[in-house]
Amino acid sequence: MFIYQKKLQYPVKVAKPNPKLASIIISQYGGPDGELGASLRYLSQRYSMPFDELKGLLTDIGTEELGHLEMVGALVHQLTRNMSDSQIQDSAFAPYFVDHTAGVYPTAASGFPWNAASMAVKGDPITDLTEDLAAEQKARTTYDNILRLSDDPDVNDVIKFLRQREIVHFQRFGEAIQLLREKLDQRNVYRMNPAIDM
Amino acid sequence: MFIYQKKLQYPVKVAKPNPKLASIIISQYGGPDGELGASLRYLSQRYSMPFDELKGLLTDIGTEELGHLEMVGALVHQLTRNMSDSQIQDSAFAPYFVDHTAGVYPTAASGFPWNAASMAVKGDPITDLTEDLAAEQKARTTYDNILRLSDDPDVNDVIKFLRQREIVHFQRFGEAIQLLREKLDQRNVYRMNPAIDM
Amino acid sequence: MFIYQKKLQYPVKVAKPNPKLASIIISQYGGPDGELGASLRYLSQRYSMPFDELKGLLTDIGTEELGHLEMVGALVHQLTRNMSDSQIQDSAFAPYFVDHTAGVYPTAASGFPWNAASMAVKGDPITDLTEDLAAEQKARTTYDNILRLSDDPDVNDVIKFLRQREIVHFQRFGEAIQLLREKLDQRNVYRMNPAIDM
Amino acid sequence: MFIYQKKLQYPVKVAKPNPKLASIIISQYGGPDGELGASLRYLSQRYSMPFDELKGLLTDIGTEELGHLEMVGALVHQLTRNMSDSQIQDSAFAPYFVDHTAGVYPTAASGFPWNAASMAVKGDPITDLTEDLAAEQKARTTYDNILRLSDDPDVNDVIKFLRQREIVHFQRFGEAIQLLREKLDQRNVYRMNPAIDM
Amino acid sequence: MFIYQKKLQYPVKVAKPNPKLASIIISQYGGPDGELGASLRYLSQRYSMPFDELKGLLTDIGTEELGHLEMVGALVHQLTRNMSDSQIQDSAFAPYFVDHTAGVYPTAASGFPWNAASMAVKGDPITDLTEDLAAEQKARTTYDNILRLSDDPDVNDVIKFLRQREIVHFQRFGEAIQLLREKLDQRNVYRMNPAIDM
Amino acid sequence: MFIYQKKLQYPVKVAKPNPKLASIIISQYGGPDGELGASLRYLSQRYSMPFDELKGLLTDIGTEELGHLEMVGALVHQLTRNMSDSQIQDSAFAPYFVDHTAGVYPTAASGFPWNAASMAVKGDPITDLTEDLAAEQKARTTYDNILRLSDDPDVNDVIKFLRQREIVHFQRFGEAIQLLREKLDQRNVYRMNPAIDM
Repeated sequence: MFIYQKKLQYPVKVAKPNPKLASIIISQYGGPDGELGASLRYLSQRYSMPFDELKGLLTDIGTEELGHLEMVGALVHQLTRNMSDSQIQDSAFAPYFVDHTAGVYPTAASGFPWNAASMAVKGDPITDLTEDLAAEQKARTTYDNILRLSDDPDVNDVIKFLRQREIVHFQRFGEAIQLLREKLDQRNVYRMNPAIDM
Repeated sequence: MFIYQKKLQYPVKVAKPNPKLASIIISQYGGPDGELGASLRYLSQRYSMPFDELKGLLTDIGTEELGHLEMVGALVHQLTRNMSDSQIQDSAFAPYFVDHTAGVYPTAASGFPWNAASMAVKGDPITDLTEDLAAEQKARTTYDNILRLSDDPDVNDVIKFLRQREIVHFQRFGEAIQLLREKLDQRNVYRMNPAIDM
Repeated sequence: MFIYQKKLQYPVKVAKPNPKLASIIISQYGGPDGELGASLRYLSQRYSMPFDELKGLLTDIGTEELGHLEMVGALVHQLTRNMSDSQIQDSAFAPYFVDHTAGVYPTAASGFPWNAASMAVKGDPITDLTEDLAAEQKARTTYDNILRLSDDPDVNDVIKFLRQREIVHFQRFGEAIQLLREKLDQRNVYRMNPAIDM
Repeated sequence: MFIYQKKLQYPVKVAKPNPKLASIIISQYGGPDGELGASLRYLSQRYSMPFDELKGLLTDIGTEELGHLEMVGALVHQLTRNMSDSQIQDSAFAPYFVDHTAGVYPTAASGFPWNAASMAVKGDPITDLTEDLAAEQKARTTYDNILRLSDDPDVNDVIKFLRQREIVHFQRFGEAIQLLREKLDQRNVYRMNPAIDM
Repeated sequence: MFIYQKKLQYPVKVAKPNPKLASIIISQYGGPDGELGASLRYLSQRYSMPFDELKGLLTDIGTEELGHLEMVGALVHQLTRNMSDSQIQDSAFAPYFVDHTAGVYPTAASGFPWNAASMAVKGDPITDLTEDLAAEQKARTTYDNILRLSDDPDVNDVIKFLRQREIVHFQRFGEAIQLLREKLDQRNVYRMNPAIDM
Repeated sequence: MFIYQKKLQYPVKVAKPNPKLASIIISQYGGPDGELGASLRYLSQRYSMPFDELKGLLTDIGTEELGHLEMVGALVHQLTRNMSDSQIQDSAFAPYFVDHTAGVYPTAASGFPWNAASMAVKGDPITDLTEDLAAEQKARTTYDNILRLSDDPDVNDVIKFLRQREIVHFQRFGEAIQLLREKLDQRNVYRMNPAIDM
C-alpha cells in the first residue's frame, strides 16, 4: 500500500501562467511516454518478476514515478492558474480548456487520452526489463524536447531534475537486466520463461 | 510524493489457480470502472479542487485506491500462478496469455486496454465530485458482478472488503458535495466556476 | 422508433463563419461529454431500467438529446459555411479540415474521435442514474467553457439554451433517483440489482 | 428534432434467454459496422450534402437506422433477461457481464467499445455516398454472419428483416450517387467539392 | 514477400522546411484515410478474396500503396528537416514535436494515432471491394484538401501525383467489382459468401 | 518502393482448420507486439535515423517484417479455411467471425484493433533503437506463448522460424546501438539529438 507524504519530491514553483506551455508539458502527465505510463508499467510488472531484488527495484522506481506524476501535474496546474481570458482563448490551449477547464487530465499533448496500449507487461522478465530501458529513453527524449520548447527557468529547472532521474533509472534497469541474466542459466534464457517456469 | 509500505491494505491469499476468474477480475485492475481509473481520477482532480478539506479528501481516497489497485493485482497474480497447461489453453484465458503471459496488465475483462476516456477531470468542483459519486457506484456494481461470477471464498472475502470501501467512499463524496455547496453561494453554483474564479 | 420532424428544437442562425470556434464547439457533438454520448447513454440504459416511469424518462431525455446533437451539428455547419481560404488554413481548423473538409464529424475538440469508453451502461439502476447526474454536470461545464471561449451572440444564445436544458435534466435525474430509492426496499439497495433480480 | 413513437419498426419477441448469442448480436449495436455507426454517419453527413433530395435521403435513412439500433438493443435485452447463473458465468458472456450486467452497451462482439474511427464524414458528397455504399454492404455481411451463428428462429426473423433493409438502403444510395453525378458537371467531379464550392 | 528498391515511386524534393504543413500531411501517413490504411486494407483483404485476378489486384495496389506511404513519409521528413527553433515552437507543430521530435509517426493531423478501426476486412468479396471504392474516394478527398492547404509547389507536385493514383485505383476497383459480379451467379450474391462457400 | 515477390519467406502449409488457434495467432498480425507494429516501427523510424548503415538496417528489417506479416496472415487464413459450422460457432472464434468472417484483420487476440499507440517513433536515434530492442523481445515472448498454446506441428514449425528471426533482429539492433554510440561523441549522447543537431 501507499502512504502519501504532503510534499513534492522536488519543489515546483512557477511564477507565470503559460497555458500554451502547459498544453505541451501535459504529455509527461498522460502522454505515451509520460510518468503515468512509467509508474503503472513498473508497478504492474513486479507481480510476475522473479527475485526479490528485481521486484523491489520495480516497486521503488514505480513509486518514485508516482511522485514525478504529481510533480508534472503541479507544473500543469501552476501554468494554468490565474490565466487571462486571452490565454484561455489561445488556439493552443482552447481545445483542452473546453473539456477540462483548468483541471489536470491524463492526455498527450496531441489530445489523445492516455491509453494502456502505450505500455507493455509481457510477463517475461528479460522482456519486461528491456521494455523498461526503452521507456526510460523515451521519457528522457520527451524531457529533452520540452527543454527545446520552453524558456521558463522555473519550469526548466524541474524538467532537468526529472530528466536526470530517467537517466538514473535507465542505468538501474541496465544493471537489473545484467543481474537477471547472471541469475538465469544464460543459455536457457530463450528456452523458458522464469516468471512461469521457476 | 508517495511512500511504499510493504504490506497490502487487506490480506490477499488465494489457494487455487483460476485463470478464467482472473480474466474477469482484471476488469477492476484496468477496466472502465476499476481501481486504476478511480485512483487516477481523484489524484488528478485535486489540483483544481478548491478548499483544503476537499483537496485532502481526494488525496486520501486516491491514495487508498492505489492500494486497492495493488490488491486487485495480487488477486490476478495469485489466480494465475502455477497454472496447468490446460488452464492456460482455456479459451477464456488464452487471448490474455498470448500477449501478457502471467503478467498483470491494465485491461478490461473485454480485452480493451485501460483508456483515460473512461474518466473525467472537468476542472469544475461540483462536476468533479458528481463524477466521483458515479465512479464509486460503478465500481460497486462491478464488485457485485464479480461476486455473482466467483465462488472462491478466498477471492470473495477480498472483493467484499473492496466493495465495502467503495460504499464508504460514495458516502464521503456525498458529504463533500454537500460541504462544497454550503461553501459556495449556492445560487451562483451555475454562474461561476470556483476552481478558476476564486 | 423515431420520427424526424423537420425543425430544430430551438432555432440556430449564425451569421458569421468562424471555423476556429467550430473546432471548439464540435466537442459537444462528439467530445467526451457531448450530446452524442448523452443521447446514446440514456437510450441504451433504458432497456435494463426497471419501472415504466424511469424507462420513459430515459427515453424522453435521450430523444431530446438527439435533437440537441442536431442543433450542435447545425452550429458547426453554419460556422464552417462560406469560409475564406485563410480561415481554412488557420492552424486551429486545418487539422480538422484535412480529414473532414466542412463536414460534421463526431470528434472532441482535442481531435479524439468519439469513443463509447466515455459513457457507461452498468445495468444497475442506481448506478446508471448516478452516471446520468454526472453526465449532465459534465455537459453543463462544457457549455460554461464554450461561453468563456465564444463572443458570438448568435452562438451563445443557442449554447445558453442547451446549457439550461442540462440543468433541467440534472434535476429530473435527481428526482428519478429519489423515486427509485423509494420504490426499492432501501436497505437492500446494495444487496441486489433490481434490473436482474426483480 | 426527433419524436419517439413507442413501438418498434418491426416486432421483437424472443422466447429463450441466450446471452452467448447476445454477445455476438451486440456487434450490430456497437460494433464497427452496426446500426449506431450507420445512423450517426448519415445524420452527420447530411449537413454538408448539397441538394435537398440527398439531404432528405440521409435524414430518412439515418432516422430509420436509429429505429434499427433500438431493435438490436431489444434483441440483446430479451436474450439477457431471466438468465440462469450458469448462463451468466459462461465464458462467452462473463466478460460483458462483469462491466455491464444485463445492460445494453455499445460495443463490438470483440469487446471493443464503439469508436467513431470506424465511420467517415469527409464533407465531399461523392465520397460520403460511396462511404455509405460500403457501410450498407458491411452491415449486410454482419447480418449474414449472425444468421450463420444463430439458430433461434425468433432472432433470425428479426435479423432477416434488418438485413433486407440494408440491401434496400444500398440500392437507394446507389441511385443517390447516380443522381449526384448527373447534377454535377461530371467532368468536374474531381476538380471541385460541391459541398464547399457551390 | 517484399523486396525493397532504393528509390521512390515518384521523386520527392522539398526545398523549404515547413513543419506546420508537415503536421497536416502526416494525415496521409497515419490518418484515417491515409496510405497506411490503404495498403494494409488491401494486403489483408487478399487472403479471403476468391479468384486469382482479384487477389492479384489487391496485392498490386496494396504494394503500390506501401510505396506511397514511403513517399508521404519522405514529404513529412523533408518538411521537418533543418527547422528553426521558432518553427519547432509553432503551436501547430509543438504538440507533435514533444512526442516525436522530427521523426515520422503514423498519426492523423488531429493527433489521433492510426487505428485499425478505420479500415474493414469483412471477408466478403463484394463488401471488401465496395469498402475499397470508398477508401479510394476518401484518400482522394484528403489529397484535395491538402491542395487547398498548401502552396508549396514542391509538395503539391507530389500530392497531385498521389491523388491521380487514387483515381486510377478507384477505377480498377470498380472494374474488379464488375468482374466479381459476373463471375458469381448474380442472383445469389446476397445468399452466399463466395469467400467461404466456394 | 517495394516489389512484391510471389512467394513466402518461409513456406506455410497448415493441414487442419483450427479457428480457435487462429484467434490467438492473429495477435502476431495485429496485436500490440506483432509483425505489423514491427514493420511499421522500423520503416517509420528510418527517416530520422542518421548514418546510412543504420537507415539501411531499419529498411532491411522493416521489409523482412512485412514478409513475416504476410506469413502470419497465411497461417490465420489457412487455419480458417474450410471450417465446419461448429468451429465457426465456437465461442473462441465467433466474436471474430461476426465482424470479419474468414478474413484476416489486424487485431489483437483480445479483440483490440491494432493501434499505433503500441509503437514509438521518438526521432532520437538512441531511443528509437532501444525501443526496437524491446520490440524484438516482446515479439519473441509472444511467439514463446503461441508455442505453449499450439500443438499443431505445421503451425509450430513456422512460429519457430519467426521466433528465431526476432532473436537475430534483437542481436542486430544491439550491434546497431553499439555502432551508434561509437559514432556519437559518447559524452554528449544525452546533450544533443543527432537526428536534428547533425
